[in-house]
Amino acid sequence: MLDYDMDKRGTLPRYEYLYRRIRDDVLSGELAAGDRLPSKRELARRLGVALVTVESAYGQLEAEGYVTSRPRSGFYVNALPQVTQAMPRPPASEAAAEKDETAADSLLADFSRPATRADSSAANLWEKALRQTFAQEPREALFAAQPAQGTLRLRAAIASYLQRSRGVAVDPANIVVGAGAQAIYAMVAALGGQGAEVAVEDPGYGRVWATYDACGRPVGFVPMDKDGMRVDLLSASDVTVAHVMPSHQFPTGRVMSAARRFELLGWAAAAERYIVEDDYDCEFRMAGRPVPPLLAADTASRVIYVNTFSKSLSSALRLAYLVLPTDLMRLWHERLGFLACTVSVVDQVALARLLESGDYDRHVARFRTQQRRLRDDLLAVLCATAAGDALGFEETDSGLHFVLAAEVVGDPAEAERRIAREALAGGVRLAPLSSYAHDPANATPRDGRARFVMQYDGLDPALVPQVAEALAAAVAHGRVAHT
Amino acid sequence: MLDYDMDKRGTLPRYEYLYRRIRDDVLSGELAAGDRLPSKRELARRLGVALVTVESAYGQLEAEGYVTSRPRSGFYVNALPQVTQAMPRPPASEAAAEKDETAADSLLADFSRPATRADSSAANLWEKALRQTFAQEPREALFAAQPAQGTLRLRAAIASYLQRSRGVAVDPANIVVGAGAQAIYAMVAALGGQGAEVAVEDPGYGRVWATYDACGRPVGFVPMDKDGMRVDLLSASDVTVAHVMPSHQFPTGRVMSAARRFELLGWAAAAERYIVEDDYDCEFRMAGRPVPPLLAADTASRVIYVNTFSKSLSSALRLAYLVLPTDLMRLWHERLGFLACTVSVVDQVALARLLESGDYDRHVARFRTQQRRLRDDLLAVLCATAAGDALGFEETDSGLHFVLAAEVVGDPAEAERRIAREALAGGVRLAPLSSYAHDPANATPRDGRARFVMQYDGLDPALVPQVAEALAAAVAHGRVAHT
Repeated sequence: MLDYDMDKRGTLPRYEYLYRRIRDDVLSGELAAGDRLPSKRELARRLGVALVTVESAYGQLEAEGYVTSRPRSGFYVNALPQVTQAMPRPPASEAAAEKDETAADSLLADFSRPATRADSSAANLWEKALRQTFAQEPREALFAAQPAQGTLRLRAAIASYLQRSRGVAVDPANIVVGAGAQAIYAMVAALGGQGAEVAVEDPGYGRVWATYDACGRPVGFVPMDKDGMRVDLLSASDVTVAHVMPSHQFPTGRVMSAARRFELLGWAAAAERYIVEDDYDCEFRMAGRPVPPLLAADTASRVIYVNTFSKSLSSALRLAYLVLPTDLMRLWHERLGFLACTVSVVDQVALARLLESGDYDRHVARFRTQQRRLRDDLLAVLCATAAGDALGFEETDSGLHFVLAAEVVGDPAEAERRIAREALAGGVRLAPLSSYAHDPANATPRDGRARFVMQYDGLDPALVPQVAEALAAAVAHGRVAHT
Repeated sequence: MLDYDMDKRGTLPRYEYLYRRIRDDVLSGELAAGDRLPSKRELARRLGVALVTVESAYGQLEAEGYVTSRPRSGFYVNALPQVTQAMPRPPASEAAAEKDETAADSLLADFSRPATRADSSAANLWEKALRQTFAQEPREALFAAQPAQGTLRLRAAIASYLQRSRGVAVDPANIVVGAGAQAIYAMVAALGGQGAEVAVEDPGYGRVWATYDACGRPVGFVPMDKDGMRVDLLSASDVTVAHVMPSHQFPTGRVMSAARRFELLGWAAAAERYIVEDDYDCEFRMAGRPVPPLLAADTASRVIYVNTFSKSLSSALRLAYLVLPTDLMRLWHERLGFLACTVSVVDQVALARLLESGDYDRHVARFRTQQRRLRDDLLAVLCATAAGDALGFEETDSGLHFVLAAEVVGDPAEAERRIAREALAGGVRLAPLSSYAHDPANATPRDGRARFVMQYDGLDPALVPQVAEALAAAVAHGRVAHT
């Protein structure tokens, strides 16, 4: 016992080898509970190693609870519960074979999701911002503890940006920064009362309700009409929070009408109710000026404003924020104020600098122009195709997607599936508008047209003609059932 | 009506001025519901502006729902619900006065919390990593859509790091990356069954239970003894998840004994139960080799492993991860797989590079040596003070904090308060060990000593003598009640 051959230790340090051998003897029962280990000095002599080697091994065994040291007596083996023979964990070999989900697939175009890569000007802008941040900001400001809401500097920069771009005066003390829109939705969920139901628009953005659902909130689906969420139906329910996208609803692209806005604000003001205003792509209104947010008319402090930099910079950066009415801000501090902010301070300072310098505003203006050109190009080329006469374009001005409507023969839902299938075969992925409806009855409007949500911001401009031809062919072929 | 003086538009574009005036007339009732606006051509002529100006203004009014266009008839004013006069939102003036919570306060030392600034070598390392990432990685890889779990590259780098540093083989497919430990705890909470209770160690780390609580999980507080969480009490409850810190418990600093580890693993294996192993500062074991994680012995796939880069790099960067057993990974994909990863892809690639190159390992080794020196220095100087004989140091080897025990006269809890008060007056903030106990009965051990949790990693090495003197004076004065 304890007569280990130290030459067999291979590349292990002596103390480590010794520790392992003794541990294994304890685990195997070779050394039994209550056994006294030889004194350090004695074992060192016996094995021909330095005293410090044995000391380290014993210290390790004691730290891990295999042995106990009794003052002026020595080290004793502890009793261990019986365990079954250890089996190896599954090897990591599968990992190498795992397909990286980020790999680009071979489609010509995918209109079913937003751009999955940042525009190169956004990438350049971010690199420059980080470089200048390191060059010009004191290190202490980049690696310091930060308030749970995010740094004051970024919040002040966001407040000032909201003032100049959205015409609303917001107190930086009411802003909370978070790692992406969903992290923000989760905060909103945590602020709701126990069991409080959240109403979402139907059709709508799946990740909104899925996030509320994952956070344990019951979700109610409220149909849209041409003016926006149906507040009459909302009023008839017990719901106390309504999540809407008034500037540019996803997926319908509709702008909530002024009348509906006031109706919704009135609904919230009439009781302890709140509106979550999701302003996710407000910067990309393509004609006229941006539609003012509900927040600007929120005299009753009932609007929770949510926005993200995913559209204007990149969703890979995870930058979003929340503006809370003062009473909810108090509640936030009470319930969530202990949580660390989820955005790196380095990134927060870099973003604040972009907002302060005007670089961000200039980037957005350029990017909007570029996207407008892309949209114009796509629409013009689509119109000129053989299927052009059967195509209509809806809500083309409100943001980074529009709705493509195709006149079809027979059931529109079936035609949508046929056209989408044909398009995919031609390398173009389409998302039928009806696929965003939770309740099929809420898929609107029913006028005999097949409709598709066209998220065009990820489209390669060079491929527009090819994509348009593939689309036209799919529509021409799929608009009529071939039996 | 509609006879606006275009010269009064100031710096506003003509269409914007026109839009605003008409909108205000609609809101004021000057233009009533059903009123027909003049034709675009007529109004343009009347006001002496270009047709496109009127078109833009009308288009904006229509987009926002103030007017409706009827084909071949013109634009009609919509009915708006009555609303009270809009009041301005509170001004942002308070914001300028808001104290930035990141501002350093005037303490000599604050042992009550971890370092709030990154060590400068960590800051340099991170800057270098970002710079090289932009210089050497393709842009597409930095701004691409990523899997919800985080990029495969980072997960593979973490798996390889866990293999070499913690001796466990982990499949990258079972790793999830998140923005800090609390984001990770929240995921664990979301995986638990409806209403499932989570057991935490008492005394323990407050943010653990607060996060579970904020996520709607009931929390049970289980006392510790010298071996770790009392599994006998755990077994007597209905709890199905136990959150523990076996390598270095916070705040006691204890290492969970081998016997207790097997007992805990046995508890989990006996039913559908899970152990959350929070390995938050395992890299900073100051003597011997790191204690192997529970994960290494987890043959029953019951361990959820949590770790963070907050200690080794900076908590400002928000980098943490989770390793799930395969069945929970499946559940994660089902319930949370739709959520976007909360860490910027740029940061993920930078961190992966640090792990791949060995720069991270070298940094940790250097940083550990530096922290060990700081600890040795502090202990030596404290021992040499006038109060040295009354001081004991516990769990000094396990990580970035130890426990300072002072012999006192009378009630230890009162002495802790007195000493902490005296120390604060001398510029040193101390956290009594008992302040971390949820149930005062769990504040251990009761041997007539006052105890303080010493998070020394934020200590300025140059201030050690001064801090030690202030501490010694506080102990000397506070250990006895002065009436």
